[in-house]
Amino acid sequence: MNRQQLVELIRQRRSYLCVGLDTDLSKIPTHLLTDPDPFFAFNKAIIDATRDLCVSYKINTAFYEAAGVKGWEAMEKTVRYIGNEHFCIADAKRGDIGNTADQYARAFFETLPFDAVTIAPYMGEDSVKPFLQYEGKWGIVLGLTSNKGAADFELQKLDTAGEKTMLYEKVLTTVSTWGTPENLMFVVGATQAEEFTNIRRLTPGHFYLVPGVGAQGGSLELISAKAMNEDVGLLVNASRAIIYASSGEDFAEKAREVAAGYQEEMSRYLGE
Amino acid sequence: MNRQQLVELIRQRRSYLCVGLDTDLSKIPTHLLTDPDPFFAFNKAIIDATRDLCVSYKINTAFYEAAGVKGWEAMEKTVRYIGNEHFCIADAKRGDIGNTADQYARAFFETLPFDAVTIAPYMGEDSVKPFLQYEGKWGIVLGLTSNKGAADFELQKLDTAGEKTMLYEKVLTTVSTWGTPENLMFVVGATQAEEFTNIRRLTPGHFYLVPGVGAQGGSLELISAKAMNEDVGLLVNASRAIIYASSGEDFAEKAREVAAGYQEEMSRYLGE
Repeated sequence: MNRQQLVELIRQRRSYLCVGLDTDLSKIPTHLLTDPDPFFAFNKAIIDATRDLCVSYKINTAFYEAAGVKGWEAMEKTVRYIGNEHFCIADAKRGDIGNTADQYARAFFETLPFDAVTIAPYMGEDSVKPFLQYEGKWGIVLGLTSNKGAADFELQKLDTAGEKTMLYEKVLTTVSTWGTPENLMFVVGATQAEEFTNIRRLTPGHFYLVPGVGAQGGSLELISAKAMNEDVGLLVNASRAIIYASSGEDFAEKAREVAAGYQEEMSRYLGE
Repeated sequence: MNRQQLVELIRQRRSYLCVGLDTDLSKIPTHLLTDPDPFFAFNKAIIDATRDLCVSYKINTAFYEAAGVKGWEAMEKTVRYIGNEHFCIADAKRGDIGNTADQYARAFFETLPFDAVTIAPYMGEDSVKPFLQYEGKWGIVLGLTSNKGAADFELQKLDTAGEKTMLYEKVLTTVSTWGTPENLMFVVGATQAEEFTNIRRLTPGHFYLVPGVGAQGGSLELISAKAMNEDVGLLVNASRAIIYASSGEDFAEKAREVAAGYQEEMSRYLGE
């Protein structure tokens, strides 16, 4: 999915919601556990209940890998079930030397039909570039993350001539020279609201994938006010707050209610 | 496998060689491609040919994920085939917020029987700690990598009071407070020989996983001289140089010859 298609979807559905499928068998309703593929049974119900309210789904690969081969099968079924009307993100946080990054890009863009993969920037240019070589596909590089550990390295100050620069700022400005706003996004955590104005200044044209709303406590209102650009430029993810809204048989219905709440709020921020 | 067991293996086999199973169907001998599981057929032959010469195997997850579910199956078969007499590394470069890192740790330490997983440090403490909670299991955190992209961020100078510190040095000193030399190693690329003395000074007790010998051009002699500690403290990986030593039917035999060359050289550096 290219940028123009993504922006059109956002305008049509009046939503920049990404639903995160962090599917954990210890948290899904117990009646699903007798299904031959409980991951997929759960995901299918969540997708059916939220399709019209969101523009993106994000599959957190860790939750599937924890189940081994069966999990990987469920991930494949899920991404194929989502189809072409949503921007499909493999939240995989991959990153390795060039010849290995090539293989990760194949895994998620050729073997599986994802639109985007999240990437860790630590290893530099050759670890990111292979993800930017595919027409209509995207690399989403970690900028400033939503977790406490962001303080350990991302927020460390670099010794640059003149102005102080934090590592994450260097990552944003350096990585943005490796791609374009047409094939490169950044992960920026919703809990980092005080940094959003600065981040938008550094990367005016890029989309951000924003996790951390919901269970992690970030404010949708604040980030929308600070970081929206003329093409919206935001995909705001909620995972646990939506998919685990209820642990009962009404889980899909409750997930829809929470997703509808986000969509309604987003519609207001999108204006006319 | 705990540290004492690893050190004993190294002393017994007079080797600190790790064989990297970066198995790529476009590079393996063509006669294997008719096998129902060419990944495993290739890996089994390489493992059978090198078992006594190495102490570790490293599975680069990217190459298996590129083949989807079949690749994940082959990875599982391979790690189970390797067994308990080698230190099994999932070279996965994972790293995510705490609840997700928990799932990655489950994937590689519970669902699959790996001894260690490589981890990207960018997201900080909560992304690393879950891998350090398992008895006899290890996290191997990226320190200074072997690729050109290491210059982009890892070698950037931080603004610390007094002495200049590069990001990778901050990573080594900070991460080493999160674990111990009993459950934490670092990845240090063999191509970074000029930094090895400094790295050993910062982390005297830790093991290093050292890729970059062979295809990437690092010198085994130089890194052994600079970085060996009293428990050896090194696992030196070669992947392509060993497993693709021949593309013919003699691939396993040729792999053995190259591995034997490394083992012999290592035996000299180990002394009496």
